[in-house]
Amino acid sequence: MKIVQCVPNFSEGRDLEKVEKIVSVFKNIDKVKLVSYEPEPNYNRTVVTLLGDPELIKDAVIKMVGLTTELIDLNNHVGEHPRMGATDVIPFIPIKDMTMEECINLAKDLGKEISQIYNIPVFLYEEAANLEYRHDLSDIRKGQFEGMKEKIKDPRWNPDFGNPEIHQTAGVTAVGARMPLVAFNINLDSSNVEVANKIAKAIRYSNGGFRYIKAGPAEIKDKGIVQVTMNITNYKKTSIYRVFETVKMEARRYGINVLGSEIIGLVPLEALVESMEYYLGLEGFSVNKVLETNLIE
Amino acid sequence: MKIVQCVPNFSEGRDLEKVEKIVSVFKNIDKVKLVSYEPEPNYNRTVVTLLGDPELIKDAVIKMVGLTTELIDLNNHVGEHPRMGATDVIPFIPIKDMTMEECINLAKDLGKEISQIYNIPVFLYEEAANLEYRHDLSDIRKGQFEGMKEKIKDPRWNPDFGNPEIHQTAGVTAVGARMPLVAFNINLDSSNVEVANKIAKAIRYSNGGFRYIKAGPAEIKDKGIVQVTMNITNYKKTSIYRVFETVKMEARRYGINVLGSEIIGLVPLEALVESMEYYLGLEGFSVNKVLETNLIE
Repeated sequence: MKIVQCVPNFSEGRDLEKVEKIVSVFKNIDKVKLVSYEPEPNYNRTVVTLLGDPELIKDAVIKMVGLTTELIDLNNHVGEHPRMGATDVIPFIPIKDMTMEECINLAKDLGKEISQIYNIPVFLYEEAANLEYRHDLSDIRKGQFEGMKEKIKDPRWNPDFGNPEIHQTAGVTAVGARMPLVAFNINLDSSNVEVANKIAKAIRYSNGGFRYIKAGPAEIKDKGIVQVTMNITNYKKTSIYRVFETVKMEARRYGINVLGSEIIGLVPLEALVESMEYYLGLEGFSVNKVLETNLIE
Repeated sequence: MKIVQCVPNFSEGRDLEKVEKIVSVFKNIDKVKLVSYEPEPNYNRTVVTLLGDPELIKDAVIKMVGLTTELIDLNNHVGEHPRMGATDVIPFIPIKDMTMEECINLAKDLGKEISQIYNIPVFLYEEAANLEYRHDLSDIRKGQFEGMKEKIKDPRWNPDFGNPEIHQTAGVTAVGARMPLVAFNINLDSSNVEVANKIAKAIRYSNGGFRYIKAGPAEIKDKGIVQVTMNITNYKKTSIYRVFETVKMEARRYGINVLGSEIIGLVPLEALVESMEYYLGLEGFSVNKVLETNLIE
């Protein structure tokens, strides 16, 4: 039985009635598990996590895009998040009995259908990218919804599917395939977004930090604090504990404490193993020592 | 599909040829997974971890007891372990679609068969105990193999199955049923067993320590160090990190560093969650955030 993970993000995290309406398309589907949906008011987006049959997930996501197009108008959208579409990104991740190649094909099929059904331009990213310079989502989404109106007309940024013109309210959508990552946020006991930015720069690859960290600052206005928000794109090589301890170390420089952290979506058990080893000094530990690993077989 | 966990311990951890011969009975059984077997030379015992169909595991364990009886003579056995039988203890743990009651019945069936087939007296312990004062394994095994020759004649310590006379080479065996526990050892950078004993006393329930810790000292002679060896019998209430940090704190009192730790057998994911929360400051974390939990369903 093939299992894919899909983590669609849509640009509504404040109006919970709308959120419920949108995620309702994922409920009660045989062979598809709605693992979680996390509305984030500060980011004004919701991250949905799905596991299950690839084709059934694809069909449900198409329905979701229909609802987000109907309910979300990017012209009236603000939030801590470089968003570009009502449905912003849709990554597929191979989990069980699936190759990356199959995920790429799934992404392409979905992208094509979205552009045809809803007239929304689609960009392919990460492993599904047709063009190397479109690999990174951050490059695609630069300029956000507002900037995309012009950007998409540049032949370099014509979409992979659909016309070089944004959907007037739903913008554009990126569909991709990638390996599992860890979406990890660290909260600082400070309201100074500049400090969060400096710490993000210290740890992220693009500014000399860890090879597999993409990070940025964010304000959590309802808590009056700032956050270093990051993706650990290869948790086998850049461990959670290493990033966390480095952020604590950097924060000390500014006299600021780390309040805590959060994982968005799912974390593979393997990503936690090195942290357990580090903090508890565990020897001879591995995912196979965890009961649940053995129950999956 | 019912799944039971069974963790038989037998008293050979040095002669690896014998160990292989004994564990071979668990290999290639459909619906039974030999998760691991860990020969421990210092303890001169091997801990086997099995998962699978209750009846098939029971049948395989009976074969194992036959082999340990044939291959192990407790009269010539030494090791850091209060052992009393060639097959020392056999606990059953309910994992999936199984009640504790069913585990108790399985333990009783197995105990009866062992005593009948091999003429080995059997004590029932923990949840399977017929008598309240036999609940704790440590009370049953007090006196070890050598002391059991007389102890078993005391009406208070007549076995639950079989005659009040030890098997001349295989001693006695304890069979029980219990909830999952965490077998956790912490290594100290010291060869002073008295210090390990003092730290064990500081953390264990019986001397005023944590409610769900059973602990003792052990010498790891091949490494020239000592160990605090423990069972965390309720990891929901006494967390791994709390015990680990307390042992570090106590060790400082003697100017001794903690070198590391090890988990023997399997650890339920749930037992790791609080430690992850503590060390990484995770908020909103739970077993459901881990990918593998969602794959089991």
